Amino acid sequence: MGTVAVTMVEVWRGGLLESLHTGHGVVCDASGQVRHAWGDPGAVIFPRSSCKMLQALPLVESGAGAGLSPRQLALACASHQGAAVHVEAVSRWLGDLGLRDGDLRCGTEVSRDSDLRLAMIRAGEEPCQVHNNCSGKHAGFLTLNRHLKGGAEYVDIAHPVQVAARAAFEEVTGVDSPGYGIDGCSAPNFATTVQGLAHAMARFAVAGGGSGARERAMVALRDAMMAHPDLVAGEGRACTELMRAMGGRVAIKTGAEAVFVAMIPDLGLGVAIKITDGATRASECAIAAILVALGVLDAGHPATRRRLGAVLENRAGLAVGSVEKARGFCEGRLG
Amino acid sequence: MGTVAVTMVEVWRGGLLESLHTGHGVVCDASGQVRHAWGDPGAVIFPRSSCKMLQALPLVESGAGAGLSPRQLALACASHQGAAVHVEAVSRWLGDLGLRDGDLRCGTEVSRDSDLRLAMIRAGEEPCQVHNNCSGKHAGFLTLNRHLKGGAEYVDIAHPVQVAARAAFEEVTGVDSPGYGIDGCSAPNFATTVQGLAHAMARFAVAGGGSGARERAMVALRDAMMAHPDLVAGEGRACTELMRAMGGRVAIKTGAEAVFVAMIPDLGLGVAIKITDGATRASECAIAAILVALGVLDAGHPATRRRLGAVLENRAGLAVGSVEKARGFCEGRLG
Repeated sequence: MGTVAVTMVEVWRGGLLESLHTGHGVVCDASGQVRHAWGDPGAVIFPRSSCKMLQALPLVESGAGAGLSPRQLALACASHQGAAVHVEAVSRWLGDLGLRDGDLRCGTEVSRDSDLRLAMIRAGEEPCQVHNNCSGKHAGFLTLNRHLKGGAEYVDIAHPVQVAARAAFEEVTGVDSPGYGIDGCSAPNFATTVQGLAHAMARFAVAGGGSGARERAMVALRDAMMAHPDLVAGEGRACTELMRAMGGRVAIKTGAEAVFVAMIPDLGLGVAIKITDGATRASECAIAAILVALGVLDAGHPATRRRLGAVLENRAGLAVGSVEKARGFCEGRLG
Repeated sequence: MGTVAVTMVEVWRGGLLESLHTGHGVVCDASGQVRHAWGDPGAVIFPRSSCKMLQALPLVESGAGAGLSPRQLALACASHQGAAVHVEAVSRWLGDLGLRDGDLRCGTEVSRDSDLRLAMIRAGEEPCQVHNNCSGKHAGFLTLNRHLKGGAEYVDIAHPVQVAARAAFEEVTGVDSPGYGIDGCSAPNFATTVQGLAHAMARFAVAGGGSGARERAMVALRDAMMAHPDLVAGEGRACTELMRAMGGRVAIKTGAEAVFVAMIPDLGLGVAIKITDGATRASECAIAAILVALGVLDAGHPATRRRLGAVLENRAGLAVGSVEKARGFCEGRLG
């Protein structure tokens, strides 16, 4: 996977290159035509959380999610940071279903929101499954499961919820998945190619002209993400800050091990990247570079500059280095 | 730096390669002869904390550290995790010097020891500079500074403490440093080559036959590290666990951005590696692979298996992947 990857990100210190990150990336249109590519478009990757909007398609298409608000749909696509706003919303959602924390199968996770995390430590409270960054996706799975009348173990590979997720994933990526892994939240995560993932994002980007259930579901999920960037991740996070910086006109999503995707309705394009070593600092820098080069993100916006040319500060608060787009990667405007 | 790096570590999930890490590495003897190399031995790197024993040489050579115990010398070479044992020892050391936390220049850092960190949060206590993983190194700098009668700003590049550190660093690596960066703890960190760093480690490995101040300092620092692995890092950490697994016969040290070094007295060899992307999971796996291949670390030891073939567990505790030595890297015994 690494041999044909290109250097996308460099980490500098004291005027010397300290570390670097290589990756694969594709910008593609809804017909599947590759407009720009770096590295190997056919590289097989796990999209991890970057494909949550694909996993949520059956929830909306089936009608199971008919009563859900855009806020809930945004949470279904989210890797939220377990702040109070996320935890309360998912808890209410479970309550609406007549379910509770123990019905989730995502596992517990310490809240990534420092205010809530510190408050819980001080109060001696243990983290629950709703604090897991994937709890919104799992509330969506449980909502679909009620509709499908499946058993309680909704993350099993053969469970109707996951069978539906896989079918939607393969249809929209246009790639028969070569395999699956178990994600951090215990749900199956289906492998695909960087190009397949970018193609799926382009289909989301152009959705809106047709009237089929899938197309309407794509619009609902995409627009929910763009309308509620605070729910898709959280304060200070790349997805939230960069979506705000783009004025709600682009939906983006990160995934573990340095995947990042974008759907750009104004251009009818989808983007997918994977940093080969799995470093999030690099995927955030590289997706920002691509969005700037495509003309949809302001290079000078503070949210951009925190990822693209990010200043590294040491423990005394001194500027000691930076995370930069690699020389030669994404130079100039991508036509 | 990345073009000739070799793939050292692979991250697997669901039977598919999810991420990989490339790097440079050298095993060398005290004459500077390269016995084994991967990637580019001449790659320029920042050793970061892996060179703390080099930075501590002037402390011992000058006689400034004559009254220090092996425990203090181990702390001078440490990236400790700010557990009670480390914080108390460094605080006592400062007290012995008639100095206090505010005399350190390393910056504050939240303790990496979960017991102490949680206790401090519950008690509403703010982290101090002694909690910084480099506070032992800085206590050593302050001890040398008292001897040299330098000013308070002992991390300035032109300060006698840093001038002495640079001279020792360049002499023992055998390389004129091509530049420096400012480290996480605000001290200058001098760049060198992977081969230069391995050569320095080999010199430490064979020290003991001569009677010069430098050789005696090398022996004192190396033996202090091997005798007190708990002080060099902390419970659960790679340096501590792997040094224990090797029965105190090898000294190893990690550095930020995925540097790792080893000094092996029994073989008269030094090792240095740098993972190009800066990922610690990979540097720990790769150094373990090299130490196993050199015959000084048991591949089956639990401490080894937590780094080499480490099982990745998800939030529900399921085994979902592993961090493996790359196929073709360090196969068989390194003669």
